[in-house]
Amino acid sequence: MTMSAARPGATDGASASSPARYEDAVLGFRNHWYPAMFSSDVRETEIKTLRVLGEDILLKRVDGRVYGVRDECLHRGFQLSKKPECFTKNTVTCWFHGFTYNLADGGLVGIPSDPDSKLIGKLKLRSYPIEEHKGMLFVFIGDIEPPPLSDDLPPEFLAEDMHVVPFHQQEVASNWRIAADSASELNHTFIHKRDALLDYWRQPLPFAEIPRGNNPYEGWILHEGPGFKGFTDAFGDAIPVFEYKFECDGEVGVVRAAYDPAVEPGSVAFGNMEATLALPCGLRIGPWGANPGDPESANYWHYEWYVPVDETHHRYLIAWGSKVANAEEALRVEHDVRTRWSYLEYEGFNASDITANEGSQRAYAEDGYEFGEKENLSRSDGYVLTWRRIAAKHNRGLQVRYGGKK
Amino acid sequence: MTMSAARPGATDGASASSPARYEDAVLGFRNHWYPAMFSSDVRETEIKTLRVLGEDILLKRVDGRVYGVRDECLHRGFQLSKKPECFTKNTVTCWFHGFTYNLADGGLVGIPSDPDSKLIGKLKLRSYPIEEHKGMLFVFIGDIEPPPLSDDLPPEFLAEDMHVVPFHQQEVASNWRIAADSASELNHTFIHKRDALLDYWRQPLPFAEIPRGNNPYEGWILHEGPGFKGFTDAFGDAIPVFEYKFECDGEVGVVRAAYDPAVEPGSVAFGNMEATLALPCGLRIGPWGANPGDPESANYWHYEWYVPVDETHHRYLIAWGSKVANAEEALRVEHDVRTRWSYLEYEGFNASDITANEGSQRAYAEDGYEFGEKENLSRSDGYVLTWRRIAAKHNRGLQVRYGGKK
Amino acid sequence: MTMSAARPGATDGASASSPARYEDAVLGFRNHWYPAMFSSDVRETEIKTLRVLGEDILLKRVDGRVYGVRDECLHRGFQLSKKPECFTKNTVTCWFHGFTYNLADGGLVGIPSDPDSKLIGKLKLRSYPIEEHKGMLFVFIGDIEPPPLSDDLPPEFLAEDMHVVPFHQQEVASNWRIAADSASELNHTFIHKRDALLDYWRQPLPFAEIPRGNNPYEGWILHEGPGFKGFTDAFGDAIPVFEYKFECDGEVGVVRAAYDPAVEPGSVAFGNMEATLALPCGLRIGPWGANPGDPESANYWHYEWYVPVDETHHRYLIAWGSKVANAEEALRVEHDVRTRWSYLEYEGFNASDITANEGSQRAYAEDGYEFGEKENLSRSDGYVLTWRRIAAKHNRGLQVRYGGKK
Repeated sequence: MTMSAARPGATDGASASSPARYEDAVLGFRNHWYPAMFSSDVRETEIKTLRVLGEDILLKRVDGRVYGVRDECLHRGFQLSKKPECFTKNTVTCWFHGFTYNLADGGLVGIPSDPDSKLIGKLKLRSYPIEEHKGMLFVFIGDIEPPPLSDDLPPEFLAEDMHVVPFHQQEVASNWRIAADSASELNHTFIHKRDALLDYWRQPLPFAEIPRGNNPYEGWILHEGPGFKGFTDAFGDAIPVFEYKFECDGEVGVVRAAYDPAVEPGSVAFGNMEATLALPCGLRIGPWGANPGDPESANYWHYEWYVPVDETHHRYLIAWGSKVANAEEALRVEHDVRTRWSYLEYEGFNASDITANEGSQRAYAEDGYEFGEKENLSRSDGYVLTWRRIAAKHNRGLQVRYGGKK
Repeated sequence: MTMSAARPGATDGASASSPARYEDAVLGFRNHWYPAMFSSDVRETEIKTLRVLGEDILLKRVDGRVYGVRDECLHRGFQLSKKPECFTKNTVTCWFHGFTYNLADGGLVGIPSDPDSKLIGKLKLRSYPIEEHKGMLFVFIGDIEPPPLSDDLPPEFLAEDMHVVPFHQQEVASNWRIAADSASELNHTFIHKRDALLDYWRQPLPFAEIPRGNNPYEGWILHEGPGFKGFTDAFGDAIPVFEYKFECDGEVGVVRAAYDPAVEPGSVAFGNMEATLALPCGLRIGPWGANPGDPESANYWHYEWYVPVDETHHRYLIAWGSKVANAEEALRVEHDVRTRWSYLEYEGFNASDITANEGSQRAYAEDGYEFGEKENLSRSDGYVLTWRRIAAKHNRGLQVRYGGKK
Repeated sequence: MTMSAARPGATDGASASSPARYEDAVLGFRNHWYPAMFSSDVRETEIKTLRVLGEDILLKRVDGRVYGVRDECLHRGFQLSKKPECFTKNTVTCWFHGFTYNLADGGLVGIPSDPDSKLIGKLKLRSYPIEEHKGMLFVFIGDIEPPPLSDDLPPEFLAEDMHVVPFHQQEVASNWRIAADSASELNHTFIHKRDALLDYWRQPLPFAEIPRGNNPYEGWILHEGPGFKGFTDAFGDAIPVFEYKFECDGEVGVVRAAYDPAVEPGSVAFGNMEATLALPCGLRIGPWGANPGDPESANYWHYEWYVPVDETHHRYLIAWGSKVANAEEALRVEHDVRTRWSYLEYEGFNASDITANEGSQRAYAEDGYEFGEKENLSRSDGYVLTWRRIAAKHNRGLQVRYGGKK
C-alpha cells in the first residue's frame, strides 16, 4: 500500500499518532481504518466521492481495484471530482489546468504548460490506502504505515467462513460519538421496546440491564491485547429489565417490554447474546436468531459502524454476517438477509437508533455542553465510561481539520 | 412555585441578579416573567415546546395547570419533546433511556436501569414557574424567587375588571431590542401614516412628536418605585406632528398624515392617549376608541410584548384589554375584538411595525455596529435613551447562552 | 463629484490608502472604481440595490443621472431600500422615522420630529461617486478623491471610437481573487478545449503556453506608469500548446485541442492576441475575429470584471467592444454581439470559467488554506505571481468589513 506524500509547503492536517482524548475527537481518531462504502457503490471506471473525518476523497475503480486520492488539485485547489477527466484508465486529470495524477499513488505525471517540470514524478496528491473485503470498502485515514485491517474491526468480520451482507448506509445528523456512546450500553434499548422487529422475532430484548454485582464494571471483557481494541458486554452477566415501575405524586407508572420471556416461552436465549464495540467505531452484536421463537437458529451477527463525516454528521453502515460451510449456505444467507432482515432490521429497529442519536445532537452541539459529564447518572453508565476510557487509551491520534494546525 | 435545581455538575447559564447593561442584553434580561403563549395553545394533556431567551422548554397541561421543564434530558441530552412518553399524567419519560421526571418540579422519579439510584428524588430537571392569567401563559426565566407577575407587566393588565383578548402572536426576525426601542418612542409612527386602521378609525395619530420644552425628558412619568418598572409617555405632553416639510436643492417635499385633526373633526382625542413601556418587554398603549370618530368610546388598551427567542428573533404577542362591569360586557368585548379589531389592528397597523423592526436587523447584526450609538439624532430620541436607562437600571440580570459561562 | 462624510461617531470601515497585501484582500481593494451594473438596469426614477465589496448601496436615477448612497439610515439602521419613499425626486426618506437624505450627496435634509435640528445640512449618509460610460455604471468605493475612471479600467475601454456592448452579468460563488488569478494566465484555457465557441470560430486557442526563454517573466509588458496598472501577456511571445502527452504506468495519455492550427488552416492568427489584466479587477482580451476562420476580421475586444461582492462571491460582468468609424458600424456591432456572440461567448465559453472558479472555492475557503502558496507549480505560474505582485504594489488600500476596524 503506497503512502501518500504531504502537500508541498504545507503542514498536513495530521496529528502525531499519540492517543487523543475522547472529548477532543469531534472529527474522530486518525490513523485508523474506516468503512467507506459498499463495493457495489463503485463500479469499474466509475468515479465517486466521499467525505470521511472531514477529508474529501475521490474514489475510482480501475481493473477491479478501488483507489482513493484527495479530491483537490495540488495546484490551485480545484475539486477534481467536479469535472474529472481520465485520459488513461489509471489517471485523473484536473479539469482546470490539466495537472494529471496517478490514481495508484497520487503521483503527478504531467503538466500541460510545463511538460519537463522537475515536479513530475516528485509531487504527490495525498493517496488513501483502500482495502476491499466482504463487499465493503475500507479506507485508511492517517499518516503511519497502516496496521492490519483486522485491528480496526469488530471480531470475526474477516473470518473466511463469515458470509457478510452489507445492506444499509446513510448519513445521520449527529456527531459520531453520540452513536458510539449509545452503542456501548444496553440501556438505550428502551427506545426499541415497541419496535416491530421484536414482535416478529419473539425476541426478549430487555430495555435496560442492571449489573449483578456492586461493581458495575465487572463481567466485561476488555480487549486490550493484540488485535482489535474494545470491550465485550455479555448480556447474560447482567439482570435484564423487562418491567419499569416508578411512583410520582402517588401515581404509579408501569412500562413493560413488548415481549416478556417470563410469560412468553420459546424465544431466543437472550442471555447468550453479546455486544462488542471496537475501535475506531464498529459494533458487533449477536447472535440473533434466524427463525422467530427458535433459540437454536441464533446464527446471525449484526455489524454496524458510525464513521465521522464532519463535526455534526456521521455515516451509519450496517452489515449482517453469518458463518457458512459452503457457497450454497452463503447464498441462502444472502437471500434471507436481503429479502427479510434488511427491511425488518432497519425500518423495524435501527431507525429508532437514528432518532435517538439525532435527538441528542442539539445538546452536544450547544456551546458549553460538557462532553461526557452527564453520562454517569446510573450504574449502567459504566458502559459508556469504559468505552470512552478504552477509546482514549488505544486510539492512534486525533483527526483535525485539514489545515487546522496553523 | 417550585424552584428548579441546577444541573448536576454544571454551572448554569444564569448570571447573578445584578442589573445588566442594555447593550449586552442580546438574549434579554434574566429573572423576569415573560409571556410564553396563549392559554388556548396548550390543551389538556397536550405537549408543546417553546424557545424563550435561548432556553428550550417543554410545556404540558395537567389537570388544568401548565407545567414547564427544560426540554433536554439530564442524562445524555436527548430532546424530551422529540418523542415524549407519559406513563403517568404528571410525568415525562425520556424516550432514550427512560429517565422519568415529575413535570411539577422537574424531579427525577425513576431510572429503568437503576431503580434504586440515590439520584432519584434528588436530581432535578430545570423547571420553570408558570402562571396563567387573562388567557395567557407567563413563564419565569431565572434563578431567584420569582417576584409577583404584576411587577413584570404593563399597568392594569391583571386588574380584575380588565377583560383581555389575546389575538396575535408570531416570530419576528429581529433582536428584541429593536422592537422595544421602537415601542419606546412615538416617532416611529411615521410608518403608520398610511395604515388602513387609521382610515377606518378616523384616528389622528401623528407621525412624530416634538417635545414642548427645551428639555426633551420632561413630561414623562418614570415608574421606578414598587411594582412594574418603566416609563409613560403622555401624548398630550408633546406637540403632535401631522405635517412634515423639507427642502432639497430648491424643491420642497411635503408629507401629511392620512387623517388630519385640524381639518377632520369628530375624532378620538389623541391628546388623551398614553404609552407605557414596562420591563422586561411589554407595552400598553391607549385608550383607543371602539367606534370610529367617537372620542367617547375610547375604552380599549393595546398590550404587546417582544419576547427574546434567540439573538436574532423575538416573539411578538398582542392582546387587547377593556374594562368591563359584567360578563355580558366581557362577551361583547370578546366578540368585538375577535371579529373586527384583530384583523384591522394587525393587518392594518402592527404588520408595519414588524417590517420596520426586521428592516433594521441587518444593521444591528453587522459586526461592529455600535449598539445604541445612533439613536440620539433627534430631540425625540430621548425616549429611547430613557427606556434604555430605565431598563439598564431595573432589570434583574443578564441572560447568557446555556453553558455560555465557561 | 461629492465625497461622502463618515458616519457620526463611527470610525468608518475604510482603511488608509496604502497598498494592501493580495492575501488580505478577501473583500477587494478600496479606493478604486468598480463596474456596478449595466445602464439599462436602472431606469429613470427606479431604485435598485447593489452589494459591492461588502457595502450595501441604494441606487436611483434622477434626471438621467444615477446616484448612490449607503442603503442604511444613519438613525437606527433601517434598510432604506426596503420601503423607500421619495417625496421629492432627488431625495430618499427613511420609511421608519422619516429621516430624509439628498441623493446627490447623502446630506440629511429633514427630520419630522426635529425640524430645526442642527444636524440637518450637517450629517451625511455615505454617498458613492458614480460614473456612467459605454452602457455601464461604475461606482467608486473609497475615501480619497477618486482618480480618473480610466486609471481603473483595461486599455481603450473609454476610447471614443470603441463601441461597447455589455451583455452578461451574474453572481459567481467564489472569491474574486480566484477569478482574477485565473484570468492572469493562459493555462486555464485547458477548460476551454472542447468549448462550443471554438468549434464555431475555428479559433486555435491553445490549452496552455510555454515561455520561450528560461525566464518565465520576460516578454510581459508591465503597466506601472501613469494610467491603469496591470500587465499584458502577448500570446505570441510564448509557445502555444495544442497537444499534451503524459505517461503513467506504461500507458500514454494524449490530449489535443479541438481545433489544431497545424492541420486546420484559415484560422485567426492566435499569435496576434493579447490579454491585459488591470487593477482593480478588469481584463481585456483580443482581438477576436468577427467571422469564423477569417483572421482579417479580428476586431472584437472582450472585457470582463470580477467585482468583489462579499468574501465568497463576486459579480462577473462581460462586455464586448469594437472600434467603429460611425453610427452605422456601431449599430452593426450592437446587433452582431447581441444576436450571436452574447450566446456563443457566454454559453459556449465563459460558463466554463465560472465552473472553474466555483470549483476552487472550497479549497480557498478551507480554514488554513495557504493563499497563493500553491500556484508556483509550473513555469507558467509566473503569470499569477506577476499579477499578484502588481496588484499588491499598486492597489490603493484594503477593503474591510463595515465596522470591522473596531
